[in-house]
Amino acid sequence: MTNSDLDAVVAAVRERIDPDEEERRALADAAAELESRVYDALDDLPVDADVLQVGSTARGTWLSGDRDIDLFVRFPEELPRDELESYGLDIGHAVLPNGHEEYAEHPYVKGDYDGFDVDLVPCYDVPTAPEIRSAVDRTPFHNEYLVEHLDDDLAADVRVFKRFLKGIGAYGSDLRTEGFSGYLAELLILEYGGFEPLLRAATDWHPPVEFDPEDHGTRSFSDPLVVIDPTDPERNVAAVCSAENVARLQHYARDLLSNPREALFFNSAPPALDADGVRKHIDRRGTTPLAIVFDAPDLVDDQLYPQLRKSISGVADGLDRREFDVFRATTFAADEAVLFVELAVSERPAVERHVGPPVHVRQHAEGFYGAYAEGNDHYGPFLDGDRYVVERDREFTSATDFVTSDALFDVALGKHVESTLREDGYEVFVGDEVATLAETFGAELGWFYDPRP
Amino acid sequence: MTNSDLDAVVAAVRERIDPDEEERRALADAAAELESRVYDALDDLPVDADVLQVGSTARGTWLSGDRDIDLFVRFPEELPRDELESYGLDIGHAVLPNGHEEYAEHPYVKGDYDGFDVDLVPCYDVPTAPEIRSAVDRTPFHNEYLVEHLDDDLAADVRVFKRFLKGIGAYGSDLRTEGFSGYLAELLILEYGGFEPLLRAATDWHPPVEFDPEDHGTRSFSDPLVVIDPTDPERNVAAVCSAENVARLQHYARDLLSNPREALFFNSAPPALDADGVRKHIDRRGTTPLAIVFDAPDLVDDQLYPQLRKSISGVADGLDRREFDVFRATTFAADEAVLFVELAVSERPAVERHVGPPVHVRQHAEGFYGAYAEGNDHYGPFLDGDRYVVERDREFTSATDFVTSDALFDVALGKHVESTLREDGYEVFVGDEVATLAETFGAELGWFYDPRP
Repeated sequence: MTNSDLDAVVAAVRERIDPDEEERRALADAAAELESRVYDALDDLPVDADVLQVGSTARGTWLSGDRDIDLFVRFPEELPRDELESYGLDIGHAVLPNGHEEYAEHPYVKGDYDGFDVDLVPCYDVPTAPEIRSAVDRTPFHNEYLVEHLDDDLAADVRVFKRFLKGIGAYGSDLRTEGFSGYLAELLILEYGGFEPLLRAATDWHPPVEFDPEDHGTRSFSDPLVVIDPTDPERNVAAVCSAENVARLQHYARDLLSNPREALFFNSAPPALDADGVRKHIDRRGTTPLAIVFDAPDLVDDQLYPQLRKSISGVADGLDRREFDVFRATTFAADEAVLFVELAVSERPAVERHVGPPVHVRQHAEGFYGAYAEGNDHYGPFLDGDRYVVERDREFTSATDFVTSDALFDVALGKHVESTLREDGYEVFVGDEVATLAETFGAELGWFYDPRP
Repeated sequence: MTNSDLDAVVAAVRERIDPDEEERRALADAAAELESRVYDALDDLPVDADVLQVGSTARGTWLSGDRDIDLFVRFPEELPRDELESYGLDIGHAVLPNGHEEYAEHPYVKGDYDGFDVDLVPCYDVPTAPEIRSAVDRTPFHNEYLVEHLDDDLAADVRVFKRFLKGIGAYGSDLRTEGFSGYLAELLILEYGGFEPLLRAATDWHPPVEFDPEDHGTRSFSDPLVVIDPTDPERNVAAVCSAENVARLQHYARDLLSNPREALFFNSAPPALDADGVRKHIDRRGTTPLAIVFDAPDLVDDQLYPQLRKSISGVADGLDRREFDVFRATTFAADEAVLFVELAVSERPAVERHVGPPVHVRQHAEGFYGAYAEGNDHYGPFLDGDRYVVERDREFTSATDFVTSDALFDVALGKHVESTLREDGYEVFVGDEVATLAETFGAELGWFYDPRP
């Protein structure tokens, strides 16, 4: 394998993702026009502020077709928060007459201009990143740092790396993906000086992998990947990135270097499954899938997915503790949400073993024996080595009985998942019944039954 | 509860087990006649030897109805072993004309005299017990020690204690029972000065419990009960006694003291089960019994039971490692031997999880991935956290498949059990099929399905 194979693949990828001159010009024109509108609007306000284009479109690292323009309006630190918010919205509505309000840490206006999706976000102009008053205040510092350090070649490699991360499913610092943010991708390219050196290095990473570009970090992190924010010594830019996504990057870096191909940069999801396809896998595997299906709580993804993950982990743990062996578990969401477990053992006998204290621990032993000496609803007590043992009736002999009982609420569930299950109820599908989920979740079931790195 | 309740129970037990005057006289007469015959026979031999009555009938600790007379002929240490053996047999045949030869460490003659079962055993007359040349040489020392230390009252308490141990199933140092030998029972009565003080002490034992009546022990033991042989500082008389039998004594000591009753001294086995009874328990428990049935190897119990235990433990372990959950396991033997497991899980899905190395352990990770990257006989590799995982076809999806396959011989089996299974074959009964075993093993199945301390 020679570099030229990889170079050829990268060149082909760039053909598809590099914005052309026309796209760049259209974007620059739109951004200039929007900025000028912001200053016009500012003229009407009794406050000094500036405007700043940020994000990938501000620094040439966007992929062709991305249509996001992010404009930050920086107000003086002294401005009370309520005034910042109201000025921010005034400007937003003035600049984007057909925009609507959204809410992050502050409300802001989102709207359409000349085919671009525009966010117009108010923030505070603080002297340094560690002094920020809300998370959005950090963005201008990131932007400034990257504009200063990224030249055109590096920006091109950022685009290639971002496309690669998307292709392998590791792009995005949202809490559903738990992957690499755009800013993290940019810093890694800066760190290694390009896409190929980054890939080559990643193949040999031994997490935890730690970088501190400005050599100013002041604390330690337990994350598998640590990149100290060059604009904030206390922040790990990769805090959200899971060990699995670090491993995913390592795996596909090796894969791409040993067998360069364009396909890795573009969606390589397994085919979606229909109901028949799901049934074939159930039959082939001999396992028992079990799905708890309910109306997805009305939450943004960054709240929903952590709650779903906490819930599936609680359900799987509750099943495991009752000796229903969970083989795999996952969760899906659209209008409905699904807690999906695949069981290797879904039925248990009527009895369960209950091991008591050693006979020589007299007080406990006598208490245990006394509690079970009478009655014929159990076997024993008998001796196993030096301990008493009884065999009692098991509370749940089938996994379905457990998840359809109130005991489901003894496991740790996400807050809104729990209230939805309690108040709106839920359905349980077992075995072949889960095949009907393919109608909504065919893609997710495709991944589940044809899992890839 | 007053002592008088226990005293009354003990008195009633003694009514049943104390040999009466007539029985004592008959035994003394028989022993005297046999001794005199031995000396007659010795007159014809060119060697100096003496004869010694040993065992419980020699020291008043036998239970009424026991018919064993043990006579040891002590030869000089210098006598070559082959001469000792041939003289021993000569005397045996002379004293017991209708006797037959048996084999322990030496051959010896066993025969009937006046309704008594007589063992006539040759041994060496060594100066002290640690100098013995074979295990039987120790017996005269034990006998001498006990004759010296046991008075009539203590001998009576030994009888009561031995009857108690029999009643609770803990009597016997054979390797099937792994319980208390007669000698051990006698030493414990001596140690505590009687049956009741021994019982009271046992209720509060915290194993390891250690005694050294002659305060001469020279080494340490890891057994739950240690009684240094008063005639041999290097020997634990209780070496065979299992933790379970120590716990059993503790349990029933508490039981007898809190509720004194004669029943505890006599067989309190659960009723034997017939086939219908077995089927009812199988149904009630919802478990899957599985029995491997074969012709019992032609071994004495002290060889057979350790081999059966090793084998059932190997089989249970082999099943557990293949994720068939063993709920309980046991072994029975008569003409046929049975390795009996009760399974909580007897079937497994077609796939099993196989966890590979972390992706960052590059060489192993690449080897693992490479081994599974191609082919469609497995699921994956995919990532779980930072590791590769594949789901492969399981070798055995049913416990029956495993025990009927050659893989059964990969588990640790007793030597003669293994050769019998290999050469003579075996049958496997699963589920309700095991009910037919009740015909031969109804009592054992009664214990299994109605277990008691």
